[in-house]
Amino acid sequence: MPKVVDHDGRRVELIEAAWRTIARTGWDSATMAAIAAEAGFSNGALKPYFATKDDLLAAAFDYIYVQTGRRMAAATAGKHGLTALRAYCREILPLDDTTLDEARIVIPFWYKALASPHLAARHEHAMREWRQQLQRHLTEARDAGEIRTPIPDEHVIGHLLTALLGAQITATLMPTLETAQTLTAQLDSFLTLLKPV
Amino acid sequence: MPKVVDHDGRRVELIEAAWRTIARTGWDSATMAAIAAEAGFSNGALKPYFATKDDLLAAAFDYIYVQTGRRMAAATAGKHGLTALRAYCREILPLDDTTLDEARIVIPFWYKALASPHLAARHEHAMREWRQQLQRHLTEARDAGEIRTPIPDEHVIGHLLTALLGAQITATLMPTLETAQTLTAQLDSFLTLLKPV
Repeated sequence: MPKVVDHDGRRVELIEAAWRTIARTGWDSATMAAIAAEAGFSNGALKPYFATKDDLLAAAFDYIYVQTGRRMAAATAGKHGLTALRAYCREILPLDDTTLDEARIVIPFWYKALASPHLAARHEHAMREWRQQLQRHLTEARDAGEIRTPIPDEHVIGHLLTALLGAQITATLMPTLETAQTLTAQLDSFLTLLKPV
Repeated sequence: MPKVVDHDGRRVELIEAAWRTIARTGWDSATMAAIAAEAGFSNGALKPYFATKDDLLAAAFDYIYVQTGRRMAAATAGKHGLTALRAYCREILPLDDTTLDEARIVIPFWYKALASPHLAARHEHAMREWRQQLQRHLTEARDAGEIRTPIPDEHVIGHLLTALLGAQITATLMPTLETAQTLTAQLDSFLTLLKPV
């Protein structure tokens, strides 16, 4: 009988191996051979799934986006308004080993996206989805009277997402200045500023 | 008579050429030969000044840091407190062609710094300087009663700088979502939230 290969399963295994390898050694050092070895496959095993390292990076970005989305759904389940908004934002912040590793993938992704309209479009699509979710939680918080700032929603959301993306930089590159504690305090401070006076 | 070469001048010419080439074509496409050609020099002209492309990127970061510092000094001259704080922050935001190009250099720099403690230390040093300046303007604004938020200074400054760094990402990768207008409005909104009630 021919061996049955679970192609979707293997694809995810390879993405996870890529993700671990890139986070640990950096994008430049993470060769296709090193990623295959991390996943326990031979050198050529990646090619049928990902023709180039850029394809793999795009898939790793999608994977992180889906994983973050799952965490957001779990963290906001049963929560409403400002509490849900806070829980949602916290899942974007790099606060633990997993999310710090995600930041170490997303920075190479941004760098590659600068020269790739295709990757930039993928990023923008993801960010538009997050903005919509932020809007949903913000509207709920306003309806509940938990947020009463005169600042228009679009600026609250734009600023919040820009700061959450900036945290990927500060947490990975300045770990002595910005920690889980300071980034959480900054998020809470900003949300406090939006409350009723 | 032997030709006298202005080495410092040539170094700056090469950094500026590198900066233009990287911003236009992306880091990967900006070869040492392309950068030398942009500066009007032969292929080998870079080596005596920058042994590797990474050295050139580090020099380009320093150059942008110095240029931004000059703009900050000019923009805040004669200003005080909240007005100076706003002017200072605006010089970090990517609001025009020059500062958007700077963002297109700083993102590759961040990416390289992820795997280079030396570059990360250089970045942290620069950010510590900026935080000190932000603190100086914030203290002045508090003393003048222009800012009265109960949020501690360190969180105001940490959040502000994180958002200003995040803007490098959003302005370059999502130019339809974040423009000079939206980024300025977000900065002004945040500063408004800090004012007395």
